[in-house]
Amino acid sequence: MTRVPFETVNEVVTDAFVRAGMKREDAELCARTHAESSCDGVYSHGLNRVPRFVDYLQRGWVDANAKPTIVKELGVIEIYDGHSGPGILNAFFATDRAMAIAAEQGVGIVTMRNTTHWMRGGTYGWRAADKGFVAIGWTNTESCMPAWGGKNPRLGNNPFVMAVPRKKGHIVLDMAMSQYSYGKLQVTRLKGAQLPYPGGFDKDGNLTSEPGPIEQSMRILPMGYWKGSAFAILLDTLAAVLSEGLPTNAIDKVQRGSCTGCSQVFMVFDPRQLGGEAFTDQVADSVADYVTSSTPDENEREVRYPGQSTVAIRAEHRANGVVVDDGVWAEVLALAGRTG
Amino acid sequence: MTRVPFETVNEVVTDAFVRAGMKREDAELCARTHAESSCDGVYSHGLNRVPRFVDYLQRGWVDANAKPTIVKELGVIEIYDGHSGPGILNAFFATDRAMAIAAEQGVGIVTMRNTTHWMRGGTYGWRAADKGFVAIGWTNTESCMPAWGGKNPRLGNNPFVMAVPRKKGHIVLDMAMSQYSYGKLQVTRLKGAQLPYPGGFDKDGNLTSEPGPIEQSMRILPMGYWKGSAFAILLDTLAAVLSEGLPTNAIDKVQRGSCTGCSQVFMVFDPRQLGGEAFTDQVADSVADYVTSSTPDENEREVRYPGQSTVAIRAEHRANGVVVDDGVWAEVLALAGRTG
Repeated sequence: MTRVPFETVNEVVTDAFVRAGMKREDAELCARTHAESSCDGVYSHGLNRVPRFVDYLQRGWVDANAKPTIVKELGVIEIYDGHSGPGILNAFFATDRAMAIAAEQGVGIVTMRNTTHWMRGGTYGWRAADKGFVAIGWTNTESCMPAWGGKNPRLGNNPFVMAVPRKKGHIVLDMAMSQYSYGKLQVTRLKGAQLPYPGGFDKDGNLTSEPGPIEQSMRILPMGYWKGSAFAILLDTLAAVLSEGLPTNAIDKVQRGSCTGCSQVFMVFDPRQLGGEAFTDQVADSVADYVTSSTPDENEREVRYPGQSTVAIRAEHRANGVVVDDGVWAEVLALAGRTG
Repeated sequence: MTRVPFETVNEVVTDAFVRAGMKREDAELCARTHAESSCDGVYSHGLNRVPRFVDYLQRGWVDANAKPTIVKELGVIEIYDGHSGPGILNAFFATDRAMAIAAEQGVGIVTMRNTTHWMRGGTYGWRAADKGFVAIGWTNTESCMPAWGGKNPRLGNNPFVMAVPRKKGHIVLDMAMSQYSYGKLQVTRLKGAQLPYPGGFDKDGNLTSEPGPIEQSMRILPMGYWKGSAFAILLDTLAAVLSEGLPTNAIDKVQRGSCTGCSQVFMVFDPRQLGGEAFTDQVADSVADYVTSSTPDENEREVRYPGQSTVAIRAEHRANGVVVDDGVWAEVLALAGRTG
């Protein structure tokens, strides 16, 4: 582990993306988003994901220069085709467009079909909240998890995001449908550790907290067992229906890497046109205060609202440099032409 | 357990509600909703809930004759005050109003503050899907569950509903934020059985599948541990913000029974104005087929999509009579003035 200043991460990743064929302006926005994810402690979709994204650009699975085009406009709803453009650019476009509609009409709903991996879902929730909007959004993905009662992968991880703006720190949920990610299984296995709670079934159908046997069986557990399974199914269906796009079963046939061909939903509300900023802050403060004033359990750790720890990690990384994995950083430096 | 014809359940419950002060027309709609929930196998919010609802009417915690009034209109969004009227009537009003807006503008969003228990959340998802609409809705509730890392109840169960219409059977999710309901804990304890998976912590903070110690500690488990906890917090905040209503921490101060004073959201989309009915059916069929064609796990049970088993139970109950608990049925007969 090394500490690298945020702006250095930004510049190096930008260079890597430009070398892979992106326009500098687009590369800067994508690079900043990866850097911010690492800065917020979401390493899996931050710097660690840069080499894979470059690989997808090089293979042509992501089209560096594609721009979304409108498919349908229906009042506050707009449907776009992402044309396999960079998922981050498409998702920013959709978020910003939804905010623009919401600023005029109270709510804006933008859906995006045929897009690619948006990296960290929370990015778009934080962005909307930073501008004072409430957001709900999700993506479907290729399958990586069995449906409840099944053995073979049939469901996407379908990350789901909700955000409420708040002066003292936004309340933001960014949640995938599996209890743990495969990344978490791998990290835990490499440490020789166990998961804190069971994370899936081994090949014989035994629930286990050992990561290795779950990685082998691919029988990762939906969060809340049958509940996360059902939620994943509905998120998938709605994403495809509302974007006139592909559901998980069709994304599985695309075979151009993780999430290529996926469908996304971005719903944004303007609370300033509803109860107003002061009311929204008062509600959000009361919710946060109620949660954080819980009596801590036997672990005696602070009870936090969703998004609270992100702000703390972000501040620490901005002050002291972003924590990067040495191997990944070397690889990204090479992709940026900065070695030798 | 006894079998009672659906229409008999309907008539008896209607009489009970009329005797408790409801107009016959309103009583009929509420009674049918309770009967349908039992018919669909959701006994907890069907017939079993009738005595408590009558009690709330008698205490004045639910105002039998209150009607929702509009608070704000903002394009496709309408906010209503439910004035502590019957939760079922308020929720039907909201669902129907959202469908009317969606029929004109593609999407309709109705929020309802100051309402009362809507009983089974799925009711409104099924209703919207029956009319060809896609629906997303939720309610907040009083607290019944600790936030993750806390010991004392601070979160509502906040049931969340999503529905997609489909000719061969709608896909419907109806999910509360706890892994199990207190009702499920009680039923399991009375059977002398264990929960299939851990359902909460005992008073010493040990995760357990024994229902009794969880009922005592009130440390019921959010589905997916930290994930359900975070989701419950966001659903609560959004419900209050979007309805200009009360969040869980304020509902806890109302003290007029379960859910009195709660805030609800009803979002309805018209897929006929998006990809069309045939496209929606094709997507929904492909999702359902992908799930149901899973390789069954070691339990060798059919893998089902959300809503599938509801249709099967409903058909069986319609044909052979609704399963009712003898004690509850006797109590409801008495409330209807049908004893002696």
